[in-house]
Amino acid sequence: MSLSILVTGGAGFVGSHTVLELLNAGHQVICVDNLCNAFGAADSKLPESLKRVQELTGKNVTFYDVDIRDKNGLREVFKKHKIDCVAHFAALKAVGESCRIPLQYYQNNITGTSVLLEVMAGSNVLKFVYSSSATVYGEPQKLPLDEKHPTGNCTNPYGKSKYFTEEILKDLCESDPRWSVISLRYFNPVGAHKSGRIGEDPNGEPNNLMPYISQVAVGRRPCLKVFGNNYDTPDGTGVRDYIHIVDLAEGHVCALDKLARGDLNGFVVYNLGTGCGYSVLDVVEAFSKASGKEVKYEIVDRRPGDVATSYADVTLAAKELGWKAKRGLKEMCEDTWNWQRLNPNGFSGAN
Amino acid sequence: MSLSILVTGGAGFVGSHTVLELLNAGHQVICVDNLCNAFGAADSKLPESLKRVQELTGKNVTFYDVDIRDKNGLREVFKKHKIDCVAHFAALKAVGESCRIPLQYYQNNITGTSVLLEVMAGSNVLKFVYSSSATVYGEPQKLPLDEKHPTGNCTNPYGKSKYFTEEILKDLCESDPRWSVISLRYFNPVGAHKSGRIGEDPNGEPNNLMPYISQVAVGRRPCLKVFGNNYDTPDGTGVRDYIHIVDLAEGHVCALDKLARGDLNGFVVYNLGTGCGYSVLDVVEAFSKASGKEVKYEIVDRRPGDVATSYADVTLAAKELGWKAKRGLKEMCEDTWNWQRLNPNGFSGAN
Repeated sequence: MSLSILVTGGAGFVGSHTVLELLNAGHQVICVDNLCNAFGAADSKLPESLKRVQELTGKNVTFYDVDIRDKNGLREVFKKHKIDCVAHFAALKAVGESCRIPLQYYQNNITGTSVLLEVMAGSNVLKFVYSSSATVYGEPQKLPLDEKHPTGNCTNPYGKSKYFTEEILKDLCESDPRWSVISLRYFNPVGAHKSGRIGEDPNGEPNNLMPYISQVAVGRRPCLKVFGNNYDTPDGTGVRDYIHIVDLAEGHVCALDKLARGDLNGFVVYNLGTGCGYSVLDVVEAFSKASGKEVKYEIVDRRPGDVATSYADVTLAAKELGWKAKRGLKEMCEDTWNWQRLNPNGFSGAN
Repeated sequence: MSLSILVTGGAGFVGSHTVLELLNAGHQVICVDNLCNAFGAADSKLPESLKRVQELTGKNVTFYDVDIRDKNGLREVFKKHKIDCVAHFAALKAVGESCRIPLQYYQNNITGTSVLLEVMAGSNVLKFVYSSSATVYGEPQKLPLDEKHPTGNCTNPYGKSKYFTEEILKDLCESDPRWSVISLRYFNPVGAHKSGRIGEDPNGEPNNLMPYISQVAVGRRPCLKVFGNNYDTPDGTGVRDYIHIVDLAEGHVCALDKLARGDLNGFVVYNLGTGCGYSVLDVVEAFSKASGKEVKYEIVDRRPGDVATSYADVTLAAKELGWKAKRGLKEMCEDTWNWQRLNPNGFSGAN
């Protein structure tokens, strides 16, 4: 069944990879993005990432430069297109920045989502996939983290904005049973499309490990900072569940298919991870091997809010979405390196 | 010191009583209200409640019919007036309605507050009193509830909107130490101004006990529904901490004085209650005595989300705000009845 899917934040890392997989699966994609974290293509109205998605797939993306807080702008898009489902990626996502400018985070992530939901309701579009995060679990009380683990107790505005939005979605579904909402709780998305044409392109100093490592490997940064080596983990560094971005994108395709089939009502949550934990030093080693580059690092103090270990129980998504991550750490590192090597300055050095 | 205070939601129950006390204390008051729950005066641009506040005080209120989500409308107000502090009452507050239309609650209460804070920051007005609620404590883990009791686990969108907004305020104060914010957690505001000219005027069926009782006493409703008489309390009915609205309003005057003195930085929370718990049947009896009317009631099922007992530890406000509730249950009932008797149909039968 070919669907017409509105993707918000389609120009970003997760958005662009998901758009690619949706097009490949035969769906129509309409994107909105305010381009606040995306690089415009020099020769087109599309952001560079989506221009490349079009090249890779040979298919067209309809794009609107619209901010999701702009109710009238969104309404126009819903008037112009018959939309079956919405996949909502548009959000600010840097933990450190969220502590410096919390109001902007709450306005983009909470107000933005609620305006989008209001416009959807007004257009009778009631199927929604939400880009959530494992951060909603707060400090793990037991591992692996399954979907029944309590949520809340987030330590920064970014995490709170994801948690609050899940609560809003839950309340919305309880208030009106016609809604079907899937919230996908991402663990740590890394990697890039096999082509090396699209990938993660963070602004400024990366918040996350993998883009930091790859910028060190390519010579853009001198040295990786490892935040603490005295955690209660095998090598003392933090353990996380990394997931390849293409696996993550495929998870969204499965979720949208499930919504389109009318298989569920109300608010449902799935973890998207591999179920495997790797330490910082595991990733450094795997990346060095994949890239053939030395990755210099130094141990510095722990970062407030970081937990020792986090990884997913992935059985529910396997059972109910028919989805499982297929790509391992080696492939995550190879594909990240391929993207970095081909695009040492991300999309800004685009050709 | 005479202050210039912006009051949002100034036409409402808590807002109008606070405006009155602020004017009596010699402050200038500018009100904004979208009048979504207020009754307009027939012969003036003011809402009826504020028209009466002017009559009672002999002082003028500057009023703007502005929705706090309207950034430009708010900016105009901040341009026209030099404002020292903001007291923020504008919010939707009906628990049952919040379950039916959660998006409207989140947009009014969270988006509205965050737009207001953004406009304040842009005008360098950084002193803020927030209208919070004891509902942020969720199910009490111990009694009395002091300000260190954990928050969260709210069971309805109204309560969540109050809790989420407190978190936003906390994050804002951590991000920028120039802010001073006092969050006042109300227990159960009841009563009315001694004159009987202003009081609580709920739309439709009241959510709260006291206005329900008084509408039964005045003959507008046949019978009070008591939600459960099998709680673990002395008479089996729920026990709450009721606070006279004029005491509550005086608490706001103390909080604004403290902010104006520059006595505090960051985010601080105070309970506003009496510290005494009364059961539903205690209140029915006290109201019957005060009004000389029989209050018919019937016992019905418990309401989901209601807790058995809730009352405040009020020592912190006494110590740091120099404020204490002075009016007891008898006076709460007498003043509610006086208002109800003089205004059997609230402001809508205004003369």
